[in-house]
Amino acid sequence: MHDPSNLTLLPPLARRTDSKILFIVLDGLGGVIGPEPTALMRATCPHLDALAARSALGRTIPVADGITPGSGPGHFALFGYDPLAMHVGRGLLEALGLGVDVREGDVAIRGNYCTLDAEGRLLDRRAGRLATELAAPLAAELNAAIGRIEDVEVEVHPGLQYRFAAVFRGPGLDGHVGDTDPQAEGVLPHPARARQPAAEKMARIAEAFAAAARKVLGRRDVANGVLLRGISGRPPLPTYQQVAQLRPVCIAAYPAYRGVARMLGMDIRTDVEPTATVADEVAVLEDAWQQPHDFYFLHIKKTDSYGEDGNEAAKAGVIESFDAQLPRILALKPDVIVITGDHSTPGPMAGHSWHPVPTLLYGPWCEPEGAPGFDEATCGRGRLGPRLPATALLRLALANAGKLAKFGA
Amino acid sequence: MHDPSNLTLLPPLARRTDSKILFIVLDGLGGVIGPEPTALMRATCPHLDALAARSALGRTIPVADGITPGSGPGHFALFGYDPLAMHVGRGLLEALGLGVDVREGDVAIRGNYCTLDAEGRLLDRRAGRLATELAAPLAAELNAAIGRIEDVEVEVHPGLQYRFAAVFRGPGLDGHVGDTDPQAEGVLPHPARARQPAAEKMARIAEAFAAAARKVLGRRDVANGVLLRGISGRPPLPTYQQVAQLRPVCIAAYPAYRGVARMLGMDIRTDVEPTATVADEVAVLEDAWQQPHDFYFLHIKKTDSYGEDGNEAAKAGVIESFDAQLPRILALKPDVIVITGDHSTPGPMAGHSWHPVPTLLYGPWCEPEGAPGFDEATCGRGRLGPRLPATALLRLALANAGKLAKFGA
Repeated sequence: MHDPSNLTLLPPLARRTDSKILFIVLDGLGGVIGPEPTALMRATCPHLDALAARSALGRTIPVADGITPGSGPGHFALFGYDPLAMHVGRGLLEALGLGVDVREGDVAIRGNYCTLDAEGRLLDRRAGRLATELAAPLAAELNAAIGRIEDVEVEVHPGLQYRFAAVFRGPGLDGHVGDTDPQAEGVLPHPARARQPAAEKMARIAEAFAAAARKVLGRRDVANGVLLRGISGRPPLPTYQQVAQLRPVCIAAYPAYRGVARMLGMDIRTDVEPTATVADEVAVLEDAWQQPHDFYFLHIKKTDSYGEDGNEAAKAGVIESFDAQLPRILALKPDVIVITGDHSTPGPMAGHSWHPVPTLLYGPWCEPEGAPGFDEATCGRGRLGPRLPATALLRLALANAGKLAKFGA
Repeated sequence: MHDPSNLTLLPPLARRTDSKILFIVLDGLGGVIGPEPTALMRATCPHLDALAARSALGRTIPVADGITPGSGPGHFALFGYDPLAMHVGRGLLEALGLGVDVREGDVAIRGNYCTLDAEGRLLDRRAGRLATELAAPLAAELNAAIGRIEDVEVEVHPGLQYRFAAVFRGPGLDGHVGDTDPQAEGVLPHPARARQPAAEKMARIAEAFAAAARKVLGRRDVANGVLLRGISGRPPLPTYQQVAQLRPVCIAAYPAYRGVARMLGMDIRTDVEPTATVADEVAVLEDAWQQPHDFYFLHIKKTDSYGEDGNEAAKAGVIESFDAQLPRILALKPDVIVITGDHSTPGPMAGHSWHPVPTLLYGPWCEPEGAPGFDEATCGRGRLGPRLPATALLRLALANAGKLAKFGA
């Protein structure tokens, strides 16, 4: 999906105005058109249908035709950053999502606590899905016992359940190191291997960290080791302030999405609980609306979760619960609204897919088409086209919000 | 036509599965929508229409909007290789198509036997469309008499009628040499000119070859000289095995198409005669279906030939003869089917054209659209869109076949 780089195209054109853009991402929103109706087709959504009639519709391609996006690439594309032109590791996203300050030059790791047998073989890659209450004390224990390896500071941050993030800060670190997680049980973890000569030091530090963690945790029955994944440096990315003069804010419950938002310079509303309902998130949105922001990213996770479970009925239920909150959202009178997903997660496929994502653009100059509703088939016939690059949405939103000057005289 | 490079995008995502992809290329399939019905519109194709209803439709752009593709670029695009990012000469394609082993560093030439007058001026660029029976003895004569020029081995291989291919193997050869064929009669052939300094040696060898051939053939009334065209080296191209873990096979009657397939690492079924009918080719397909291949390229030539002749009725007849064989093809139960062309060859234009090519994608997750048939107008309204880059088809086929992992976590 080659679309011009917003990172070079937009900065000279972007201008600050008071208009407000609301970007609503229903994670994994899309389904696949086939013999069974998709979740969007099943859901009864009078408010969404009414908004669709006043909007332009289309289907968007996050990465490229036929390519199934992970969550990271899907979100970067929606925010206008070409995912094929960047490499952002999951470790970095996880750390950023936990609110950790990751600086250029740092390396971040996404970790699992795991259970190993006496010979060091994996018994359980997730340590029995360890309770979240144990995450903070375990991290504190590791930080107290390790703290530093050679000239590198190490910080462990607790995540949900068996997950943690670790950040390594020191001279000469490079994130091109392979995972130690073998993705199988009954075998030894992989050694941390450098994938580039520049990463030899980081590979050595990662190995030493895994060995030290095993020693610290070793007396336990469960969670007596760690697996390291998504080892990654922080690429220099321009922020939304730099790209488009925006003052953005993120309303999301899950760490990884906050992580993406933080990388782009968004303020993060930390008063969204992991268990927040759509109504809870909208309450935070209403509060944030009083603040001097002009770009609001509202992320709703459960559409994807139910899609991954193959449960189209429950996915439709999440969409209906969003529809029920839409009047409160519209009462805020956003100048521009985008409603879309970061990728499709069709229930019949029980996973992410490559299918173009249903997308709605509402704004003063959006060319409304009076469509009868909002679903994959209707969007596929919409004015935005059947395969719009997702990276174009930011430009269309900015344009409708009056935030882009003319290109050339 | 900007589409990401499959050559870098696909290798980390591709995975081998048992599912089978069938790629059917009706050469020059497309027509131009206008006052007269196209060949596809004229043809009565009940089986194709029924398949179209269960498929996704669109029109594809092989090279770029408004650009008329030659056969080589058209096929490379269909196979997912951006024709604008590569330069593959016709000499190379011809030699590969004749089954000649062309290695990196070799230079290949596509030649015509021609008839020259006493002053060396061209009387007939094709030597009276010399009978194919003469091709092998002439090649043997040239090989016996020449064999080597300086430190370069020369091999002449017979083609159809007046055509031959020659391969030059030796140190320091570069294919950037212009044609000697002036594309006109009554004039002298061009000298072989280097278009880059690195190609000076090859230009000298080509000149010496043309002079030696003239001397060997000189006593004849017809075919007393040669014209050299499409002089070309062999660029390093990753194969289908490397790009997508595929085990591909080619079923094509004509040398140039086999040449493209061979460059991409496809096995070539040599039991397809130049005179093979569609039914003959399908018989070979049925046999190949029992082999451990997972990508089948079936090429049907005559649609293009009749399009070039301006004979839409005959072109429609070829499409009908393909339709008659379609039940045998469907009985093989391919997991994914693509039916398309390498470019359009509208009868009213009697040549290749830039018009988007009607394309059908059938697969388990193709989003069938219940279209009433398969022609340019219907495809132009299809879900794949009116101008899908042809290079996206490989990705869509692989995705539908379950052969692509997720991009990013």
